[in-house]
Amino acid sequence: MLSFENDYNVGAHPRILERLMQTNLEPQSGYGADRFCESAKARIREAFSCPNADIFFLTGGTQTNCVVIDALLHSYEGVVAAATGHIALHEAGAVEYTGHKVLELPAHDGKLDADELRAYLEAFYADENHDHMVFPGMVYLSYPTELGTLYSKAELTAISQLCKEYHMQLFVDGARLGYGLVSPASDLTPAEFAALCDVFYVGGTKVGALCGEAVVFPHGTMPKHFLTIVKQHSALMAKGRLLGVQFDALFEDRLYFEISRNAIRMAETLKAVFREKKCSIWRETPTNQQFLVLEDTEMKRLRENVAFSFWEKYDETHTVCRFVTSWATTQESINALRDLL
Amino acid sequence: MLSFENDYNVGAHPRILERLMQTNLEPQSGYGADRFCESAKARIREAFSCPNADIFFLTGGTQTNCVVIDALLHSYEGVVAAATGHIALHEAGAVEYTGHKVLELPAHDGKLDADELRAYLEAFYADENHDHMVFPGMVYLSYPTELGTLYSKAELTAISQLCKEYHMQLFVDGARLGYGLVSPASDLTPAEFAALCDVFYVGGTKVGALCGEAVVFPHGTMPKHFLTIVKQHSALMAKGRLLGVQFDALFEDRLYFEISRNAIRMAETLKAVFREKKCSIWRETPTNQQFLVLEDTEMKRLRENVAFSFWEKYDETHTVCRFVTSWATTQESINALRDLL
Amino acid sequence: MLSFENDYNVGAHPRILERLMQTNLEPQSGYGADRFCESAKARIREAFSCPNADIFFLTGGTQTNCVVIDALLHSYEGVVAAATGHIALHEAGAVEYTGHKVLELPAHDGKLDADELRAYLEAFYADENHDHMVFPGMVYLSYPTELGTLYSKAELTAISQLCKEYHMQLFVDGARLGYGLVSPASDLTPAEFAALCDVFYVGGTKVGALCGEAVVFPHGTMPKHFLTIVKQHSALMAKGRLLGVQFDALFEDRLYFEISRNAIRMAETLKAVFREKKCSIWRETPTNQQFLVLEDTEMKRLRENVAFSFWEKYDETHTVCRFVTSWATTQESINALRDLL
Amino acid sequence: MLSFENDYNVGAHPRILERLMQTNLEPQSGYGADRFCESAKARIREAFSCPNADIFFLTGGTQTNCVVIDALLHSYEGVVAAATGHIALHEAGAVEYTGHKVLELPAHDGKLDADELRAYLEAFYADENHDHMVFPGMVYLSYPTELGTLYSKAELTAISQLCKEYHMQLFVDGARLGYGLVSPASDLTPAEFAALCDVFYVGGTKVGALCGEAVVFPHGTMPKHFLTIVKQHSALMAKGRLLGVQFDALFEDRLYFEISRNAIRMAETLKAVFREKKCSIWRETPTNQQFLVLEDTEMKRLRENVAFSFWEKYDETHTVCRFVTSWATTQESINALRDLL
Repeated sequence: MLSFENDYNVGAHPRILERLMQTNLEPQSGYGADRFCESAKARIREAFSCPNADIFFLTGGTQTNCVVIDALLHSYEGVVAAATGHIALHEAGAVEYTGHKVLELPAHDGKLDADELRAYLEAFYADENHDHMVFPGMVYLSYPTELGTLYSKAELTAISQLCKEYHMQLFVDGARLGYGLVSPASDLTPAEFAALCDVFYVGGTKVGALCGEAVVFPHGTMPKHFLTIVKQHSALMAKGRLLGVQFDALFEDRLYFEISRNAIRMAETLKAVFREKKCSIWRETPTNQQFLVLEDTEMKRLRENVAFSFWEKYDETHTVCRFVTSWATTQESINALRDLL
Repeated sequence: MLSFENDYNVGAHPRILERLMQTNLEPQSGYGADRFCESAKARIREAFSCPNADIFFLTGGTQTNCVVIDALLHSYEGVVAAATGHIALHEAGAVEYTGHKVLELPAHDGKLDADELRAYLEAFYADENHDHMVFPGMVYLSYPTELGTLYSKAELTAISQLCKEYHMQLFVDGARLGYGLVSPASDLTPAEFAALCDVFYVGGTKVGALCGEAVVFPHGTMPKHFLTIVKQHSALMAKGRLLGVQFDALFEDRLYFEISRNAIRMAETLKAVFREKKCSIWRETPTNQQFLVLEDTEMKRLRENVAFSFWEKYDETHTVCRFVTSWATTQESINALRDLL
Repeated sequence: MLSFENDYNVGAHPRILERLMQTNLEPQSGYGADRFCESAKARIREAFSCPNADIFFLTGGTQTNCVVIDALLHSYEGVVAAATGHIALHEAGAVEYTGHKVLELPAHDGKLDADELRAYLEAFYADENHDHMVFPGMVYLSYPTELGTLYSKAELTAISQLCKEYHMQLFVDGARLGYGLVSPASDLTPAEFAALCDVFYVGGTKVGALCGEAVVFPHGTMPKHFLTIVKQHSALMAKGRLLGVQFDALFEDRLYFEISRNAIRMAETLKAVFREKKCSIWRETPTNQQFLVLEDTEMKRLRENVAFSFWEKYDETHTVCRFVTSWATTQESINALRDLL
Repeated sequence: MLSFENDYNVGAHPRILERLMQTNLEPQSGYGADRFCESAKARIREAFSCPNADIFFLTGGTQTNCVVIDALLHSYEGVVAAATGHIALHEAGAVEYTGHKVLELPAHDGKLDADELRAYLEAFYADENHDHMVFPGMVYLSYPTELGTLYSKAELTAISQLCKEYHMQLFVDGARLGYGLVSPASDLTPAEFAALCDVFYVGGTKVGALCGEAVVFPHGTMPKHFLTIVKQHSALMAKGRLLGVQFDALFEDRLYFEISRNAIRMAETLKAVFREKKCSIWRETPTNQQFLVLEDTEMKRLRENVAFSFWEKYDETHTVCRFVTSWATTQESINALRDLL
C-alpha cells in the first residue's frame, strides 16, 4: 500500500532510532531534567540564533497549542486565528476546553490578512461594549499553514508589529516548520522567523520524530512555573529523555532542515506528476501538502492502492483530497502513484 | 552514576526498540488506527481474560487519569481517592483542572479502607445538604499504591462491591500494574483484577516502554466518542503506532509480566542489602519501591554517587528517601550500592 | 435624562415590588424550596401549556445560557449559534469558559437559516475527519433575536425538526420572550413555542423583574441533580424566593404578556417618530429594539439628553445606535425624544 | 411556622425595600454603572476606612468565592482553606469547577491555625517534588467561620503575615461579616479587619439584603478587566442597581452593623433558653449560629413546628442541628421556641 496520507504515517528518521538505541540504558532524571534535553535545547537555540531562548519539549501538536495558549492568555482573552487554523477546526475544541475562545478571522489561502486583523482590532476597541466581549490576547498562525501555504517575511512582519501595537502575543504553530523554512518559496531564515515570534514550536512529529514538539520562547519569556503548568495540563512526559534524544538528533548537523528538504523535493515531483497526468488540481502549494479534486468513484478506486486523505467535499460527486510528502517519501512511491493515476 | 531514582530512568526494553526498528518505515494511519494497536489490544484482552474489553492507548499517567476521570464523571461528581493517591498529591491539580474535586479519604499504607469508604458514603447520603456537596462518582486507587503496597483480593473486592452498591465507577491506576500483579504478595490474577474494575490502565512508562499507558474498559463500557474526548484533552497521539508497537511487544509472550518480575527480584535483593547494612528502614514493601530514613548529611554524601528520590522530610535532620527497582535494574547496580552504604 | 438605552434601565414592575413587600417577612426555605417558586412554576406551566415542564429559576441571562448549555452538552459537543447570537458575541466567552465551543453560522437579520444549518450538519457528518472536530450537540437561538427579529413558526419548526433528526437539543434564549410572543409579527402561541423547544428560558430581567430568568424544560427533561449543577456553576440563589415571588407576580393574570405589549406599542410609536423625523433607519424590527444610523457629532449631541446604546460603527463618521423600549417606556418619553430629534 | 433555619429565610430589611420603591423608575445604566453603586462604594470605603478600595458587587456567596479565587490565582495555584470551609464543603465543587484545588488544612472550631499553616508551607517548599504539586496561592478563611467562631486579631494578623511572607493573597469570606464584627467577642474594628485582608467580601444576602455581596479590595488591587472576568464567570448582573441600591441603604448610617447587632442579641437570648431548657449543646458560639444535639425522634417532633437545619449526624440516634438568628429574628419567635422545647 502506497501512502501519501500524511507526514506522520511512518516511524522516525533512522538517526533518531539509532540514538535511542545508543542512549537506552543510561539512567537520567525524568521530566526533562536530562542531558539530552539540555543538549537539544542548545542546538535549537543555535539553529534559530536565539541564545536566550527558553525551550520546553512537549509530545504533540494539539497539546502544545493548548498549553501555550492557556499559559499565556489571561482568562478573559481569546486567541485570534484563521478560520482554517488547526486550533479553530481540527482540535476537537481543545482550546475552548481550556476556557478560551478562538476568535476566527477569514482565511486567505489559509492565512490571516494583516489588514483584516487591524480592522478587527480597531473595531474591537472602538466598540463601546467590548468589555462584554472576548479580548484578543494572542494571534495564532501556522507556518506553513494547514493548506501548505507560507507567509512572506513582509506578511509575518506586519502581523508581528500589529501584535506589539495591540499588546498581543504572536504564537506560531510550526508543526511543519521544517517544510516551511526550507521551501524555496520562503524568504525567512530561521533566525528571522524566530525573531518575529513571541513563541513558536518546532514540530517533531511531522518532521522525523516519533513524537515531540519543541516550544521555543525566543526572547526568554517562558512563564514562571511552566513545568507545573505543563503538568497541570497532563502534558509532562515522565521520560522526557525520549523528547530530548530525538530533538538532539534532529538538530545535530541541521538534520531537521536536511530531511525537510526531501519532502519539498518530493512534493515538486508529485506536482509534476499531477500536471503530467492532467489531474484536477485544487491547490498547488510551495510546501509538502498538495490537493486534488477527485471524482468520488475514482477516489474509491485509487484508495484501494494508495492512502491519501479527505480534505472536504467539493460537490455532490467530487472530493478534495490531500496528498502529503514527508522526510520519508521516496521517488519509488511517487513513481508507483504515477502508474496508478 | 548509580540510579534507583525511579522506574522510568532509562529507555525502553530492548524488544521494544527492536520492534520499532522493524516496523519503522511501514506506513500506517494515525491516531491509533494502525495494525499494531489492533494487535496490542488483542493481546491485552487475552492477558486479562476480558475478550470484550475496549482499549485505548494514551501517553502518560497523569494524562490517563485526567482523561478517564473527566470522561466518566458527571460534572457534579468528584473522584474519591486516598490522600496519598497520585491524583491527590502529585499531579499538580490536573484533575481539578478538568473541573472535578478529588475527595480525599485517609490513606492506610497508601490504601483506601473499605469500611471508611462505606462510612463516608453513608454519611454523604445521610447529610441533608448533600445536594450542595460534590457527589462521589468514582473511586480511584492505585495498584500497587504510591507507597508500593498492594490491595488484597478481599480488599479490592470489598471496594468494588461498594462501588456497585453506590453507583460509582472503580478506576484503578496501574502505572506499575506489572510490578503489583507479579509480586508474590499479590493474590490476584490479571483476570480477577480486571473483572473487579470498571476501568484500569496498564502502565507502560514505568514497565519497559518509552511512554504509553493502555486504558482498559474490561466490560466494554468505553464512552461513546472517546477518541474525540481524548483529542479534546490534548491526549491523542498522532503516531498512535508508537504506542501500539510498544504494547504489542510488551504483551507478546507475556513480556510485560516477565520483565516485571525482575523488578521484584531486585527489590528483594535491595531489601536484603538494607537489612544487612542495618539501614533505618521506613517502609518495606512487596513491590518495587523501598523507603529508607537517611540522616541529611548522609543523604547528601550518598547522592554524590547514587540517584534516589526525596519522599518527605522525616524530621529536622532526617529525610525519607525512596529507592526504586525496575525491569532494568541489575544485580551489579545493587552490589555497587551495597558497597556505598 | 431620557433613556432608551436598554430594557433593563429601571427597576421592577410595581406589582413585583408590592409582592416583595407583602411576602417580605414570611420565613421560607432557601434555594428555591419556597412556596413562591412552586406557585410561579405552576403558573408558567399553565401559560405555556406544558403541564409536565421542569422549571428552575436563575438570576441572569448569561448565567442561564452557560448553565443550560454546559448541563446539556457532552464534553465533546459545541453549541451552534448565529454569529450575532448573544453567546457568540456579548458574553465575554462565558460559554467557552465552560469548555464548549460556540459553532458560529452566518446570521440573517440575526437569525439562523435552516437550510444553512442542514448543509453544515451534512458537511460535518460527511467529513471523514469529524472525530477531530467539535460535534454539534445543540442549537441556540434567541426569540426575539439580538437584532429584534422573530423566527416564524415555519422557520422555528424547520430548525426544531433538524434538531430531532440530528439528535441535537434546541435551546431558545428568551431574554426578551414576552416582547417576541406579543408582537403582532409573531405567529406563535406560547404553547406552540414551548412545544418546539427542548429547553428555553423566560426572561425576567428585561421584562419587568429586578432580575431572574425561568429555565423551562417543557417536556420534563431537566437533567438529574440540576440543582447541584446550578450550585457548581455558582448560580444557585440563596433567597430563591426573590425569583419565585417575581415570576409568581409576572405570571399572575398573564401580567408578563400584558406588560410586554406596552413595549411593542411604544416601539411602534418610536418607529413612527423616526420616520416622521426622517432619521436614517438602519433596521426596523417588529419587537422592542430599533436601530438608527447617526452621524457621530449628532450622536454626541443627542447623548447629552438621551441615553441609547452603541451598536456598531457604520463607517468612519457614523454609528449604528440602538433605541429600546420596555414595559416601562412612556408616551411622554417618546414625545420628549421627538422634540430632541 | 417558626424558623431558625438560616439567616436568609426572609426577605430584605424594610429600608432596602423602601429604597427600591423610591428609586424604581429612575433610569440608570446597567452592569454597575449606576449612581447607587457609586454611592454604596463610597459608604463602604468609609465604613472600612479604606479610601482607595476597589469594590465590585456580586450576587451570591459561592459566586463571589469563585470569581475572586479564579481571578486572583495563577492557573497552577490552589487556595488553602479549613476542611470545614464553605468552599471546601458546601459549594458543590464550584471552586474546582474553575480549575483550582482547594488545599484543605485541619479546622479547629472552624478555624485555620497559623502554626499548622506555616508548617504546611514549610513542608511544601522543602518538598523536592513541589513542582508536581499545587502551589498555595491564597488563603481563604471565613469571618465568622461556618461554625460561628471568630478569629482574634492576633490570629488573623498571624495568618495575614504568613500570607505576605509566602506571597499568597488573604481572602476573607464575609458572608456573615456584620455578625462577626459586632460580636462582643470580636477584637477587630472594620478598619483593622480590612487592613489585614487582600480582598474580602461584605455579605448582603445573610445580613438584610435580598441578594448581593460586596467584594472589597481594600488596597486598590482589583485585577485589570475585572468586569470582563465577572461577565465571563456569568456573574455580572444586568440591573446592577439592584445591588447598588441595597448596599447603599445598608451602609447609610451604618445600618449594616446596626441590624447585625439584633442577630447577636437574639443569639444570646437563644443560648440562655437552651441552657435554661438543659438542651444538649454541641457548640455555643459568639455569633449568630448555635448548635444542639437532638435525639432523632425529638428532632422530628420539633420540626413539625420549627424550621432549623441539619448540621451532621452525631451518632446512630442523634443529630447535630443548627439554630440561626438574623437581623430579622424577634423576641417573640424565641419565646415561642422556648415554649416548644
